[in-house]
Amino acid sequence: MSSDREFLGLTPAGTPGHYRFTVENHLARLDGRLYGGTAIAVSIAASELVSDRAALWMTTQFVSTAPAEEEIRVHAEVLAPGRRTNQVRVTGSDADGQVMFASLGATGHRRDDGLAGTFEHPPEVSTPDRSEPRGGPFAAMLRNAGVEAEVPMPRDVGFNRVVEFREPAVTSHPDPGPGRVCMWARRRDGAPVTPAILAFIADMVPLSVAHGCGVVAGGISLDNTIRIGSADPSEWVLVDLRAHLATGDYGHGAAHLWSESGALLATASQSASMIRFDLDDAPWNRS
Amino acid sequence: MSSDREFLGLTPAGTPGHYRFTVENHLARLDGRLYGGTAIAVSIAASELVSDRAALWMTTQFVSTAPAEEEIRVHAEVLAPGRRTNQVRVTGSDADGQVMFASLGATGHRRDDGLAGTFEHPPEVSTPDRSEPRGGPFAAMLRNAGVEAEVPMPRDVGFNRVVEFREPAVTSHPDPGPGRVCMWARRRDGAPVTPAILAFIADMVPLSVAHGCGVVAGGISLDNTIRIGSADPSEWVLVDLRAHLATGDYGHGAAHLWSESGALLATASQSASMIRFDLDDAPWNRS
Repeated sequence: MSSDREFLGLTPAGTPGHYRFTVENHLARLDGRLYGGTAIAVSIAASELVSDRAALWMTTQFVSTAPAEEEIRVHAEVLAPGRRTNQVRVTGSDADGQVMFASLGATGHRRDDGLAGTFEHPPEVSTPDRSEPRGGPFAAMLRNAGVEAEVPMPRDVGFNRVVEFREPAVTSHPDPGPGRVCMWARRRDGAPVTPAILAFIADMVPLSVAHGCGVVAGGISLDNTIRIGSADPSEWVLVDLRAHLATGDYGHGAAHLWSESGALLATASQSASMIRFDLDDAPWNRS
Repeated sequence: MSSDREFLGLTPAGTPGHYRFTVENHLARLDGRLYGGTAIAVSIAASELVSDRAALWMTTQFVSTAPAEEEIRVHAEVLAPGRRTNQVRVTGSDADGQVMFASLGATGHRRDDGLAGTFEHPPEVSTPDRSEPRGGPFAAMLRNAGVEAEVPMPRDVGFNRVVEFREPAVTSHPDPGPGRVCMWARRRDGAPVTPAILAFIADMVPLSVAHGCGVVAGGISLDNTIRIGSADPSEWVLVDLRAHLATGDYGHGAAHLWSESGALLATASQSASMIRFDLDDAPWNRS
């Protein structure tokens, strides 16, 4: 947990349950504004701190974006303090009290001898060291849509500063079809992933929806949801994106998050308002 | 929408965004207390009413249960009023202001010519009229766990009064394995399903987690989440349950909701605290 606090710059702000963090560049999108993955990661870290339990699930709703270097105030509350399970609410606001994101979730104590099992199947993919540093999920979407452009992911902007992507060869998939995208990801500093970092990384379902539709499109995330499974120390995480559907320019989908040894660390889901990119106006087509 | 209001007994309570409903027996669990599916259905109906838009996604967190015949006050707010998309919050409380459930979600206007597609695959199952009225998902879990008991679902208690279940023969499944349970469901009055009713019906992921573990267990739902797809008028809905994982007595999973003609109406997901039943103390073993 302390590695999460350091990664997110999350610091206590006086009264219990109150924290703050700053939208530093590594917590931002490519345009410097607050990255959705940061909001859910902060919500998970704050809920674990306030309840002294491990995160079980979290949904974060994006209400408004925050500019670069903005200080965000975080308020984490235990709504229902059970002996084993705590239902929590986390709210992120700016200095004027304007809500940036709103989260609901739970934390709890897992029983060592409790019910356990995994009922989903991982795709068969190449290991991270045999996978391609090809530009991440965005490049995969471009190729899928037939766009012949070399678009290197800028390593020095936004969350790409701290997360490295590699694209595996997929030799078999339990449920193949369009909208399936697999991507290895890790913290560039090599620290093992935590539930908060899994949520930080998983924020890319809209790309799989664009992949499914065979177009180049981005998504304005409406929310991120994550449900957390068994802990299995892993540096790399396989983000196994599975678009569900698109309708009327809204898209929904899921991501299964697998450890290097094939354990299901978490499953995520997300909805987004989709926006098709005007390729004539793409940066690589501008003179 | 008016059929939802009637089904849920949702009535305006003076000021805009304020509603109320009573925990009537058909909105309750078998023990007469507020059923989780009711809370998310009410949240969807109230968010559509307050925003005058169609529901896109909704997460409902269960904070405390409400007893039979309790009057619940519902407050629906638009947190971010976009031209196309509205981010909404819905809270259900009792007369003392004690929160029963808290919901986050969005509503929006779908574009007729917007991105569209379905990237998940339905199982092949028998039609509702060739499927068995065998007692619903609970009976399926018992059989799966090797329990030789005839446990008819009581037709006159709780949500069973208004929802009929039939168990199809599954001839092929796109992603087979333990934890897969398929069930046809419809309103007993034959009214076509709406997003609110889909959410009402989908609240049974814990049964698929028990099925995956091969045990008889129930779940205390922590939340219900639903992401809504294309409208396709359908009386019956195929609830295609897919458990994801269990760890330390917590379980997570999803449900795909298909129309009679095979359209993906919505995908749902849920987390629960699992409780193994003591079969020696089961009603059918008591003298």
